Amino acid sequence: MSLDKAHHYQTLAKHFQSISHFEHLSALGDWDQATMMPIGGGEARGAAMAELATHIHNLKTAPMLADTIKEAQQEALTAEQQANLREMNYQYLQANAVPADLVKAKTKAAYRCEQAWREQRKHNDWQGFKPNLETLMSLVKEEATIRAQTLGVSPYDALLDKFEPGMTTAKIEHIFGQLKSWLPSLIQQVQAKQISEPRYGIPAATASDQALLGRDVMETLGFDFNHGRLDISSHPFCGGVSSDVRLTTRYDEADFTSGLMGIIHETGHAKYEQGLPLAWRGQPAGLARSMALHESQSLFCEMQIGRGASFLKLIQPLLKQRLGCQLSHQQLTNIYTRVSPGHIRVDADEVTYPCHILLRFEAEKSLVSGELAVADLPDFWSAQMQELLGINTDGDYKNGCMQDIHWAVGELGYFPSYTLGAMYAAQFKQAMEQRLGSVEQAIETGKLSDVMTWLEANVWSKGSLLSIDELMIQATGETLNPIHFKHHLENRYL
Amino acid sequence: MSLDKAHHYQTLAKHFQSISHFEHLSALGDWDQATMMPIGGGEARGAAMAELATHIHNLKTAPMLADTIKEAQQEALTAEQQANLREMNYQYLQANAVPADLVKAKTKAAYRCEQAWREQRKHNDWQGFKPNLETLMSLVKEEATIRAQTLGVSPYDALLDKFEPGMTTAKIEHIFGQLKSWLPSLIQQVQAKQISEPRYGIPAATASDQALLGRDVMETLGFDFNHGRLDISSHPFCGGVSSDVRLTTRYDEADFTSGLMGIIHETGHAKYEQGLPLAWRGQPAGLARSMALHESQSLFCEMQIGRGASFLKLIQPLLKQRLGCQLSHQQLTNIYTRVSPGHIRVDADEVTYPCHILLRFEAEKSLVSGELAVADLPDFWSAQMQELLGINTDGDYKNGCMQDIHWAVGELGYFPSYTLGAMYAAQFKQAMEQRLGSVEQAIETGKLSDVMTWLEANVWSKGSLLSIDELMIQATGETLNPIHFKHHLENRYL
Ligand SMILES: [Zn+2]
Ligand SMILES: [Zn+2]
Repeated sequence: MSLDKAHHYQTLAKHFQSISHFEHLSALGDWDQATMMPIGGGEARGAAMAELATHIHNLKTAPMLADTIKEAQQEALTAEQQANLREMNYQYLQANAVPADLVKAKTKAAYRCEQAWREQRKHNDWQGFKPNLETLMSLVKEEATIRAQTLGVSPYDALLDKFEPGMTTAKIEHIFGQLKSWLPSLIQQVQAKQISEPRYGIPAATASDQALLGRDVMETLGFDFNHGRLDISSHPFCGGVSSDVRLTTRYDEADFTSGLMGIIHETGHAKYEQGLPLAWRGQPAGLARSMALHESQSLFCEMQIGRGASFLKLIQPLLKQRLGCQLSHQQLTNIYTRVSPGHIRVDADEVTYPCHILLRFEAEKSLVSGELAVADLPDFWSAQMQELLGINTDGDYKNGCMQDIHWAVGELGYFPSYTLGAMYAAQFKQAMEQRLGSVEQAIETGKLSDVMTWLEANVWSKGSLLSIDELMIQATGETLNPIHFKHHLENRYL
Repeated sequence: MSLDKAHHYQTLAKHFQSISHFEHLSALGDWDQATMMPIGGGEARGAAMAELATHIHNLKTAPMLADTIKEAQQEALTAEQQANLREMNYQYLQANAVPADLVKAKTKAAYRCEQAWREQRKHNDWQGFKPNLETLMSLVKEEATIRAQTLGVSPYDALLDKFEPGMTTAKIEHIFGQLKSWLPSLIQQVQAKQISEPRYGIPAATASDQALLGRDVMETLGFDFNHGRLDISSHPFCGGVSSDVRLTTRYDEADFTSGLMGIIHETGHAKYEQGLPLAWRGQPAGLARSMALHESQSLFCEMQIGRGASFLKLIQPLLKQRLGCQLSHQQLTNIYTRVSPGHIRVDADEVTYPCHILLRFEAEKSLVSGELAVADLPDFWSAQMQELLGINTDGDYKNGCMQDIHWAVGELGYFPSYTLGAMYAAQFKQAMEQRLGSVEQAIETGKLSDVMTWLEANVWSKGSLLSIDELMIQATGETLNPIHFKHHLENRYL
């Protein structure tokens, strides 16, 4: 077949390439804002970024797209071009789903709610936060309802679809239902086991020493500094573009361990970005598959590799050299696998973390369906924390339902990605070990690169060319199966 | 008069505000490329920046502009709005002057010539550089000819106008003619006087100590760190936007003096940007008046303030504290006013610098008119260097006609701005002293801020609301008069 004739497809490819150039600038603006920009530059930057967002939205909803996509669907395309066309169509539908007025209203309400939240959280001010969240939530529901009509699914499913294409409430309920049946008792068993283990002090380390160590550890993980950087921001993230990944972290001089693990986590995100298919750069098919899959790669680095004894043994000399840290790798492993229920999601260990997600998933689902009113959120929170982690959070909104930025900016449907990611990561490890043998052993024998090569071949290089289910079946022989996560936790912690 | 009715003007204001948002992103991309971006990110960044440049060009040449500008010219506008409209029209004419094909061809040739030049310069490879420069120069001539037809001026005048609206070859010839009549003999006098002066060694200083000192000195000059930053790049520049000025320098650990003076120079540019009228941010009337005026502000900071004994006395304790530098302020003044003819423009002192510009102006003018062929440039250069500075540069292309980036990227018409700027600066000082008394004394008595307040009131806050001549007359009582520059040099050096 003559691909020259696929000129509608070619028109689309050019159009989406152009969109990706503007998204490159958007990513740069975001990164700069979080790492470099002085506060006084914020107003003009905000205006410039809003203009850019509008321009990108206009490009994604260009009137010619509907017909051109239809025409292209009739053209003779390779399988990969078809996949790219599917992703273009998906982006087009997503951008067109919600009327511009509603997008604007939600953006404005989210901005207002977030700005106030930053102060209200500090003062545990639930009464101040509540009306803003109510306003925002009614716009979120409106958005969800409109998206639901377009996609022919339920409102909360429509929100899930923004981050995890094809994911449904029913699937998550099934998966999380299983999790809930064994996780709380597992946590109790692990705690009982760890109660007699010794606890180690953590030596102080300057931010600049930690940054040098961070670079070393990133290099150990194969981060390509010719295509990326490490900087500081108040909330760690992995930004930039595939050819130039901008990774950030923050440093606690009294406790280097969380900053270091943050770098390892973000390096997992970065490796995914840097490993996306070169041939598809700038096209929708060249983007990361989903947020859960992205999280699976950061959590593979953090949980499957980073908290394992072999990796900690590998980097222990670097800690000694850069920080003068005298902890043995056994002691480091003890620190990094300590299980301890707490209020804060982002500080949670690998085992209790999913409880924070179970809670948020139930809350979000009920907020969107209307079964839960914003006013009842704190009580719901307290009850769930008590049930899942045995923690009393009454009246502590700050460290309760006001702790995350997600709802304060109207982002619902994202939370499940974290735990789905952890499950994907465990499943990848299981499949990988069938080919390579033990990952711990590979790292122990200097073959960490084999692990990365497997991920590159089976995940990163696929971009969005496959659906998630296709990717999982090709990589692991089955769609998402939470049993591997259970086995991983049991193996490591019992 | 009802300004609500000026809706064509309002349409234009909105359109140019939008352009300024994209130019904000362009400035950010440029800064990041020079300071932060890893090399591997260059290709994708280049593509994104090219897309952005095309978008900005499209906005500046939008078909609706011609009629809307004409309509707005009939509307009831304030004097400031009229000035803004004049600047919009100027930008529109500039953007429309050259056909898109020619812009593309020149951009491509310039990119190719520059890339090769970076290597060729290292190897003194004039024969390699020559054909690239010839190709580029023929495109520059084509551009100049087309611009000249639009503006009804000579080709070289049309190039000057890009950087210095209203400036002509005849005016510069007149001004530079005077300069040439007294400068070479002044240089000889100064050298004769300085021959017996002692020379001082400069202590080594780490880049990080120099950066701390740089920040201190910027604060002394009133740089607003809430609206700007200091970073490192291989070629110092002042970028970013008025609300967020990104200043860069480079550090020589064996000689801090040039890096420090580089910071003072760029801070002058930055103060101008930070002081542009707030009410006109995002509009053409809110931009800096011209390149020569920009240079006048950096040179005011560097030459009129920075190399003066009072300022060096003011910052001497900072040098001691940050670098452990034991030089007295008299010794520093000696170092910073040492006159010594050399090959390199950017390393030249205040007195010999204009000779480098005289040479380049003559060369450019003749290259554009066709009186000078590219092939004859080295001989022309040698003869002029001999005549103006008594230096033999035969065969040394590297430190001769290949030293600057300007021609290698096809940028002709810019060089005169440097010396015009130095002259404007001297004229501002003379006018300021009639109001405030001696600038040296003001600095000596802790009133540097008075100097800055004068510049803000008379230069910065004017943006592009006045023509250059109007601004000079309001600020100093006359249009550009090079006699003040002569007096300044005689005062300081004889
Ligand atoms: Zn993550
Ligand atoms: Zn300058």
